[in-house]
Amino acid sequence: MTQESTSHLVERYADLLLRVGVNLQVGQDVLLTAEVEHVELARELTRQAYRKGARWVEVAYADQHLRRALIDLAPEDALGHSPAGWLATLEDLGRRRGALIQLVDDGSPEVLAGADPVRAGRAQMIERGRLSKRLTLEKRLCNWLVAGCATPSWAERVLGRPDVEELWRLLARTVRLDAEDPIAAWREHSARLAERARQLSERAFAGIRFNGPGTDLFVGLTPGSRWLGGGGQTSWGLDFIPNLPTEEVFTCPDKRLTQGVVTATQPLVLDGSLIEGLCLRFEAGRTVEATAGRGAELIQQRMSLDADACRLGEVALVDSESRVGQAGHLFWNTLYDENAACHIAFGSGFPDLVPQAEREAALSRSSIHTDFMIGGPEVQVFGLERGGNEVPVIRDNRFQL
Amino acid sequence: MTQESTSHLVERYADLLLRVGVNLQVGQDVLLTAEVEHVELARELTRQAYRKGARWVEVAYADQHLRRALIDLAPEDALGHSPAGWLATLEDLGRRRGALIQLVDDGSPEVLAGADPVRAGRAQMIERGRLSKRLTLEKRLCNWLVAGCATPSWAERVLGRPDVEELWRLLARTVRLDAEDPIAAWREHSARLAERARQLSERAFAGIRFNGPGTDLFVGLTPGSRWLGGGGQTSWGLDFIPNLPTEEVFTCPDKRLTQGVVTATQPLVLDGSLIEGLCLRFEAGRTVEATAGRGAELIQQRMSLDADACRLGEVALVDSESRVGQAGHLFWNTLYDENAACHIAFGSGFPDLVPQAEREAALSRSSIHTDFMIGGPEVQVFGLERGGNEVPVIRDNRFQL
Repeated sequence: MTQESTSHLVERYADLLLRVGVNLQVGQDVLLTAEVEHVELARELTRQAYRKGARWVEVAYADQHLRRALIDLAPEDALGHSPAGWLATLEDLGRRRGALIQLVDDGSPEVLAGADPVRAGRAQMIERGRLSKRLTLEKRLCNWLVAGCATPSWAERVLGRPDVEELWRLLARTVRLDAEDPIAAWREHSARLAERARQLSERAFAGIRFNGPGTDLFVGLTPGSRWLGGGGQTSWGLDFIPNLPTEEVFTCPDKRLTQGVVTATQPLVLDGSLIEGLCLRFEAGRTVEATAGRGAELIQQRMSLDADACRLGEVALVDSESRVGQAGHLFWNTLYDENAACHIAFGSGFPDLVPQAEREAALSRSSIHTDFMIGGPEVQVFGLERGGNEVPVIRDNRFQL
Repeated sequence: MTQESTSHLVERYADLLLRVGVNLQVGQDVLLTAEVEHVELARELTRQAYRKGARWVEVAYADQHLRRALIDLAPEDALGHSPAGWLATLEDLGRRRGALIQLVDDGSPEVLAGADPVRAGRAQMIERGRLSKRLTLEKRLCNWLVAGCATPSWAERVLGRPDVEELWRLLARTVRLDAEDPIAAWREHSARLAERARQLSERAFAGIRFNGPGTDLFVGLTPGSRWLGGGGQTSWGLDFIPNLPTEEVFTCPDKRLTQGVVTATQPLVLDGSLIEGLCLRFEAGRTVEATAGRGAELIQQRMSLDADACRLGEVALVDSESRVGQAGHLFWNTLYDENAACHIAFGSGFPDLVPQAEREAALSRSSIHTDFMIGGPEVQVFGLERGGNEVPVIRDNRFQL
């Protein structure tokens, strides 16, 4: 058996990203953000986007070395600066109902190693982040997509050797490129996730309880809150799948109701640092204690950034059917790792998933959103009905609904 | 004798670009445009710019492969599009009196080989070009710099082998990095060019005559027009040197007065195509005939883009003291090649160098500006005094003033 060439795999991957992920429409503008290491995929996406009818494709190349220079050397007041060009680019994209694609990797943590963590935390383009969130999550003006791009440094981290071709094959399997008809496989997969989300919304649980080694956590839900899975829709009615891969169904918890103790089942990667053995204790929605075998101070610092940074913004359910979980690797990237198992995120929530009348009181609003894994073979997941009954949602790592 | 390492050379080169070229000031913003192949120099410039007190450094990476995709595949009406983000970036830079640095190479002509020349000609960001010219040449709101960056493809073209280190050493010599004190060498060199320009302005020639094999050309000058050399000044009084290297003194001809025949003394590179044996005949300022051993149709096409595209916008004098001429290579890049010998350019002129009252009638205004070499050991250059006398300006390839 011969193996598919990487360049052919990248072609099929780009096709999947454009057709299944962002669902590019004829006449749309495309904004693609990529690292300079992603030139091969960025060029392929650009060519294919034009062939599929894009009007204008713009690639904004980022470079972690420039971010490192900013962190190390820029004056204090420049750290959080958002250049005018970026804001204009995003506003224009929203106005034109453009498509937004973001390529990610492991974030080249070796480039940021040893940087001042406080300055690194401040070196975010704050206005750009806000505007980007407004376009996508809040106003849904754009169809958008986050997807991975293999690099030697990422391969080194995941596989222990800089084998980019092997990492491409691994990434390809997580997005079902090994299926006979990947487009059909995604139609089926996303329909299954959407149906699961519909069922969960319909059950209208008062909360979700996680029970396992070091974990007894109750995550309370606002009445009328919705679950989402398998994709989203723009405000103007275009379906798209904003994350490839995606294996989760998720909702936005009531920020006041989380209670109990939770232990992470996988390491968490934060700005390139590994946090192991993370354990959080919640009271009335707030994290009141955060410990870890390694990296606790990073978590504590992150959680003190603003008032809601220590409250939950997401709870997500994933079972052992996950292609990412089946891959059996830590990917050092949230896009992948959060799709390996059930997870929660502290920081900002999803306004769309909480009934308008409850948002003011129940929705977590924060400048951060940090996911970490809390599910696995030993963790049972229950739904608490409004009447008080508990029903199994995930048992022995399989969905029960 | 050991050779200096390339990384050390690049460090010293970046220092020269920032101190001598753009003359970066404390608190300035910097916009750096570079190709993705220029990451090493772009990162070094960014670090050094912050160390020298820059407030914010932004690198806009371009990618010729994306330009190729645009030329080949974009809808017709997108070809000349300037994205809103670019316009906002430039306007912001002008408002903040920022510094603008543009890194160039040979333009990766192999990437553009075989592209439709008509669509390639249209695939220019027109508004961005206009705005950029307004910031720099017209309103002088920014200190700016164009400088080279060695790449394997460029080395292949210049040296016949992809020896980037050797190309770096060659580029370094053209900008006097081999001098004991390059900063002092530049102070002296730019003062000499400025003095030469002052003398030429003072002599107030009615025109310049070039005489040599295949060349008998008169380039008429507007009374009161100025010569420039060795650097420029922003509207707010900051000295800088907008091209590294620079060896020329130049002025803006009267677009109505050029007369005679001129033969190029070096090949001309246009969008990656070589034009050899170019010969132009002028009548009353207009090119009325353009022939070439190779590539004539490209020149004819370029000259028909707008009404003044076939008239002169620049005449520049360079003698055998030129570091670029001494290098003895065709660089396939105007920044270098135009500094090897006397040259003229068809297309747009320099408003600042023509008295306000004469601009309407005498200044060439065009969307293009294309330089080509007409000087060399066999070409004599004379200044025609208003009284009718001809005085030698360059004889046997040496300045006579």
